[in-house]
Amino acid sequence: MKSNLLTILPLFLGGILFSQSQADSIQFKNISDEILTNGVAYENLRDLTKNIGHRLSGSEAYEKSTDWAVQKLKEAGADKVWKEEVTVPVWVRGKESLQIKTENGAWKSLKMLSLGNSEGTKGKNLEAEIIFVKNKQDFDQLSAEQVKGKIVFFNYAFNPKFISTGQAYGDAGMYRRSAASWAGKKGAKAVIIRSLSSAVDDVPHTGMMRYDADDQAKIPAVAIGPKSADELEKTLKTQKAFAKLNSNCGMQGEKKSYSVIGEITGNKDKNVIVVGGHLDSWDVGEGAHDDGAGIVQSIEILRTFKKLGLKNNHTIRVVCFANEENGVRGGNTYADNIQKKNEKHIFGIESDGGGFTPRGIALLMAPEQRKQIQSWRSLFLPYGAYNFELQYAGTDIEPMEKLGVPLAELVPDSQRYFEIHHSEEDTFDKVNHRELHLGAVVMGQLIYMIDKNW
Amino acid sequence: MKSNLLTILPLFLGGILFSQSQADSIQFKNISDEILTNGVAYENLRDLTKNIGHRLSGSEAYEKSTDWAVQKLKEAGADKVWKEEVTVPVWVRGKESLQIKTENGAWKSLKMLSLGNSEGTKGKNLEAEIIFVKNKQDFDQLSAEQVKGKIVFFNYAFNPKFISTGQAYGDAGMYRRSAASWAGKKGAKAVIIRSLSSAVDDVPHTGMMRYDADDQAKIPAVAIGPKSADELEKTLKTQKAFAKLNSNCGMQGEKKSYSVIGEITGNKDKNVIVVGGHLDSWDVGEGAHDDGAGIVQSIEILRTFKKLGLKNNHTIRVVCFANEENGVRGGNTYADNIQKKNEKHIFGIESDGGGFTPRGIALLMAPEQRKQIQSWRSLFLPYGAYNFELQYAGTDIEPMEKLGVPLAELVPDSQRYFEIHHSEEDTFDKVNHRELHLGAVVMGQLIYMIDKNW
Repeated sequence: MKSNLLTILPLFLGGILFSQSQADSIQFKNISDEILTNGVAYENLRDLTKNIGHRLSGSEAYEKSTDWAVQKLKEAGADKVWKEEVTVPVWVRGKESLQIKTENGAWKSLKMLSLGNSEGTKGKNLEAEIIFVKNKQDFDQLSAEQVKGKIVFFNYAFNPKFISTGQAYGDAGMYRRSAASWAGKKGAKAVIIRSLSSAVDDVPHTGMMRYDADDQAKIPAVAIGPKSADELEKTLKTQKAFAKLNSNCGMQGEKKSYSVIGEITGNKDKNVIVVGGHLDSWDVGEGAHDDGAGIVQSIEILRTFKKLGLKNNHTIRVVCFANEENGVRGGNTYADNIQKKNEKHIFGIESDGGGFTPRGIALLMAPEQRKQIQSWRSLFLPYGAYNFELQYAGTDIEPMEKLGVPLAELVPDSQRYFEIHHSEEDTFDKVNHRELHLGAVVMGQLIYMIDKNW
Repeated sequence: MKSNLLTILPLFLGGILFSQSQADSIQFKNISDEILTNGVAYENLRDLTKNIGHRLSGSEAYEKSTDWAVQKLKEAGADKVWKEEVTVPVWVRGKESLQIKTENGAWKSLKMLSLGNSEGTKGKNLEAEIIFVKNKQDFDQLSAEQVKGKIVFFNYAFNPKFISTGQAYGDAGMYRRSAASWAGKKGAKAVIIRSLSSAVDDVPHTGMMRYDADDQAKIPAVAIGPKSADELEKTLKTQKAFAKLNSNCGMQGEKKSYSVIGEITGNKDKNVIVVGGHLDSWDVGEGAHDDGAGIVQSIEILRTFKKLGLKNNHTIRVVCFANEENGVRGGNTYADNIQKKNEKHIFGIESDGGGFTPRGIALLMAPEQRKQIQSWRSLFLPYGAYNFELQYAGTDIEPMEKLGVPLAELVPDSQRYFEIHHSEEDTFDKVNHRELHLGAVVMGQLIYMIDKNW
């Protein structure tokens, strides 16, 4: 009798497991079929990028985009849509130019972009000799005397050996973030950095910099394209060169703004699953991959749950975060409000790596939760998602980490992202409709599993 | 004593296995670093596409490209370079136009391309009523009387639900290949097909068609873009419409041409490992992804083995095949010559799915060989190749299957390929340098392993 039970039990359990996995597999295909056949994410992105365009937080275009997001969340079938107040910094670029010349040469204009949050020259010409350093170590060798009154040029390139360009971005990131503070403390007048880019072109890329709290100098920081950077390095190895910078950028206080939120109510409880991206972008290009893609994918998931009648147990909430690019105020405010409202969040996922073909999902959570999600890998494989090993989460949802919320981020293929990121090149035509929609498919499938199992 | 041995042996073997896998992992990184840092595939592709451009087999441009390939193989360090004679069909497009009108409307031009190998109208206007069918089943319902004298329009779309667009291509492929034969046998005057495309644009795509051996009609076959196809279907659902086709395309006999071959000699034996792509392209666009990418990747692998001094055991041979697109004469001739020369081939791999980010390698070989390669998966994972489950090989190397040669094909991400494939859109600017080079990395790594282990 006993031995019979021991024989039958695994078969019985096996049967349940098999049919459960089969049922999940069918829902995975339903989600995929719906998005690949009827998905509106691509057309929504066209609308956002072409009719609103770039939308730096604090700008009029950003405010327009909040109304756009409200409208799109309603169209997608959200049960409830609202705006969450966020105080954002207002940084304005204004006119800017950079010229360089050798000792006996003529002034020559370079394509450039001031870095976000940088102070400018207040419309006056700032002229000085350029000194070149390859990296931080080289810079640290220079005395304050050598740096004082100069414009320091950092030409630290993306390391092509990293397979993930995100790693190369991480590796080079401190030059954009901190070079102005390093150089300012030694008395430099300004810094020029090589753009954080994997491209072999001459497109300048902006992005956030910051001044150290104890940094009184606040010298201007600008980025030039990779080709200009290599040419300037070559020039400076044989002769002196000078730069003339004129810019009007700077901080203009703070402003009341909004993140936009829409949700479909849970059928079992009001515990929240967040899926989101950031609605703001830099003030160049169209903010298509960064992060229009994450916004339209998140709205697409809500639309799909509603359309398929998936009857979510928990509340599925789309958050279009304000001010990721130069402050993360949207993400911080959202996490603060969770605590104030005493809401329970069981999971958060963000898409902010571009609308490229998905390769997996990064998981920032307890080991047993990671293991559970990894055990679902075979369900995701037919959709091209195989990598569940990375451990990080989107910048906007990261503030929820301290509240113990399990977090994740979509991992799209990274090869093309840093050619267009934060530049004039981040436009709608660089987005492929199937790649964009597949990203929504994979996130929607994971949300389906978590909603059902957690 | 015995039990001690049993304890020590696995540890000892484990040690060997561990250090072996470590050594392989180091070589994998050497290959990757070399190609991602010093790779010339991208610049070679720029040269091929911009200075020669499209190169249909039998054309003057194709002949130029054979000289180009000889030169590039020599530059890459091949020990031996030669041309292999191949007799190829000569198909010429000439001028062509397609106009449509409704009963009381005016003639309107449509963007179109005659299908490769199709006969044309010999420069005369072919005018007839258009009848619409969605698919083969619908067409089979029509009697010869209903079809006779008409132009049959097949609007079978790519199925967006397939995750691999290659599956959608396979599914829709028979319309391009065979629609003219089906319709010709029922007395149609011509066929118009919806282009084999995953795009939401109006770009027409060409590609090979064939007339059945018993098909005496040989009616013209042309493709129109997806948007035109949808509009035409809509029109034909409510009213009659007519087409006026004028084209000069047709077969112009055969010609002596060449595949181009270069190799680095094996240090242990002369057994051959083939890596290749096809040098010909369709006569539109620049043949960048199809298959300039495969050509420059293959040459890159030879360059890398030479540069790194990898001391290959077997001969590594790059084959730039002639005439894949409209005849596969290069591939067939190559396989025939293996037999004539009594050469031993131990492995063949092709890249002909575009220069996109790699996802794996398809394996067409005995189960135990597949299993061995699959056991190396963890070495490939850091480079983004995880899928070793598919079972097929490139069209040019497939003729070696009957000789028992284990075969493979690079599996790049497929989402963008069929938007540009066989069309004016297949141009150099659609290729990303890192994605292209990563494809060469993964193939180079597999060749390294096979050279060492087989």
